[in-house]
Amino acid sequence: MPQPIRLLHYGLGPIGVRIARLTASRPNLSSIGAVDIDPAKIGQDLGAVTELGQPLGVLVQPDLKTALKVQKPDIVLHATGSHLPSVLPQFLELAEAGLPVVSTCEELSYPWFHHADEARSIDGAARRRGIAILSTGINPGFMMDTLAITLSGVCPAVSAVRVRRVVDLSVRRQQLQQKVGVKLTSAEFAARKAEGKLGHIGLPESVAMIAAGLGWPLERVEQTLEAVIAPVRLDSALGPVAAGQVQGQHQIAHGFVGGRERITLELKMALQAPDAGDFVELDGPEPVSSAVHGVQGDIATAAIIVNAIPHVLTAAPGLRTMLDMPPLRSVGI
Amino acid sequence: MPQPIRLLHYGLGPIGVRIARLTASRPNLSSIGAVDIDPAKIGQDLGAVTELGQPLGVLVQPDLKTALKVQKPDIVLHATGSHLPSVLPQFLELAEAGLPVVSTCEELSYPWFHHADEARSIDGAARRRGIAILSTGINPGFMMDTLAITLSGVCPAVSAVRVRRVVDLSVRRQQLQQKVGVKLTSAEFAARKAEGKLGHIGLPESVAMIAAGLGWPLERVEQTLEAVIAPVRLDSALGPVAAGQVQGQHQIAHGFVGGRERITLELKMALQAPDAGDFVELDGPEPVSSAVHGVQGDIATAAIIVNAIPHVLTAAPGLRTMLDMPPLRSVGI
Repeated sequence: MPQPIRLLHYGLGPIGVRIARLTASRPNLSSIGAVDIDPAKIGQDLGAVTELGQPLGVLVQPDLKTALKVQKPDIVLHATGSHLPSVLPQFLELAEAGLPVVSTCEELSYPWFHHADEARSIDGAARRRGIAILSTGINPGFMMDTLAITLSGVCPAVSAVRVRRVVDLSVRRQQLQQKVGVKLTSAEFAARKAEGKLGHIGLPESVAMIAAGLGWPLERVEQTLEAVIAPVRLDSALGPVAAGQVQGQHQIAHGFVGGRERITLELKMALQAPDAGDFVELDGPEPVSSAVHGVQGDIATAAIIVNAIPHVLTAAPGLRTMLDMPPLRSVGI
Repeated sequence: MPQPIRLLHYGLGPIGVRIARLTASRPNLSSIGAVDIDPAKIGQDLGAVTELGQPLGVLVQPDLKTALKVQKPDIVLHATGSHLPSVLPQFLELAEAGLPVVSTCEELSYPWFHHADEARSIDGAARRRGIAILSTGINPGFMMDTLAITLSGVCPAVSAVRVRRVVDLSVRRQQLQQKVGVKLTSAEFAARKAEGKLGHIGLPESVAMIAAGLGWPLERVEQTLEAVIAPVRLDSALGPVAAGQVQGQHQIAHGFVGGRERITLELKMALQAPDAGDFVELDGPEPVSSAVHGVQGDIATAAIIVNAIPHVLTAAPGLRTMLDMPPLRSVGI
């Protein structure tokens, strides 16, 4: 058996923990480092932080520099932040250290339209050091962009792309329900929305990836975000939601090409959503549609990050996107 | 605008003609050569052979050597045969001529299990000449293999793969109905099957590609093929099909790993099939399923071949499979 791939876990929030737990189940992967800024986690064994039931002999360090003094990994699994400008220094530090990266950073999944400067600087650093950096995940990263692009491969021509993802929040973690605004009043939802504190991050990146993949010169992306109001009393991980309170959100991103909306991504996340699933429609002379069921965001995001590892290690140096990657399959069990 | 990519069409049967017609609609592609062995096509203008309604200024040549004397293409679109051993010399000649190839040859789509010797010799020749050769299509090539592998990327683990493709033969070309055995009696079907003249080619290759993609050591593939008998009189492109005659075929490939069936590919092609579509089920701790509608084999095969062109031009030299390729998207209209 070849030497296992040595991993450093950078960020141990809910997704980072899921990633670390999944890697522990793969015999070809070995966790040799971990970084988190949470004082409650620093100094703890990674096995304790991830509730694996046994120590991994890897202590969580407060920063990358300290972690690298212990051992250099083959690749870094990065799950700290969604906004590219705020985590840019982390990517530059990783690239300068010559470390390949798989990240969950939503705005890095396809940054060439909305954050072209940051993309260029990460790409330049990665190329100089000969390593690849990829951000992926379920949304953005797969269900609302890569899958539609992949399906377009069987179409002689595509005139418009519509993707709808419906998430049943009832089966998702409490933090996600909270993030979405469950149990708020309409007024509270409106206020938080006005502060920019609500809404899923990454739809514009998915729009930009689709446009780039299909060779469409994207002009702009517009987004709307509305509360979904509970018509009756509902249960939630945050306690009962009264009729009239917020039970979820409904977000739509519209991508315009040549003055016309050609990309529409609709994300609905609500308690007890009856029609959960992922739906792609490709318009054109030969329309194609798909419906996928069973993809639970957190679990599947951890999976695609872990499944990406061998492919990022062999990818061409630079900032890669899912447009560059072969199928990131689930290998090995 | 950059120079268009210069194409040579090798094989102008029903699929080759569809490919040539689609390339004529893409401004970034230019047909500069054509080869076919059919005396009725040799010497004809490609525009006439493909019924484009206007000449393309490209005459069909009887062989590659003659065609290359006229002009050297950037890439060859190859659609001559399904069986790798019989078309192997064509691939070797193309590779030796330093020409990248996209092919429809079913047994080349993933030849490393069933035709490893042929695969090695093509791969070697392609690497020596620094060009990439890819065979793809709808089935094999996408709906029953690549799509399942791609979807596995969101799974933490996959224990078994089941794919079902149901084709409504009523909307497909006469040649396909004939190939499938429509209008035969049960006895005629059995006799032709015994001669090895019935059955779709490529299911074993799809099984092998899935196994390779998921890192499963495939032991063997078993296939069954049965006639679908018309319960009532049906219309077909070959004339009326009497009740009791063959209206289609039902073919299943079983892939065994560790003594257990882990891959099951089921292809049903029948007149008026009510449940036409493409269905993937991935078993495991987090099962995922997909249903795709609208993919018509001939049209979509031409599409994916044409959509592959820019990616084969930039692929690493050698015999490539869809496991190596980024999403082959529909670019540009």
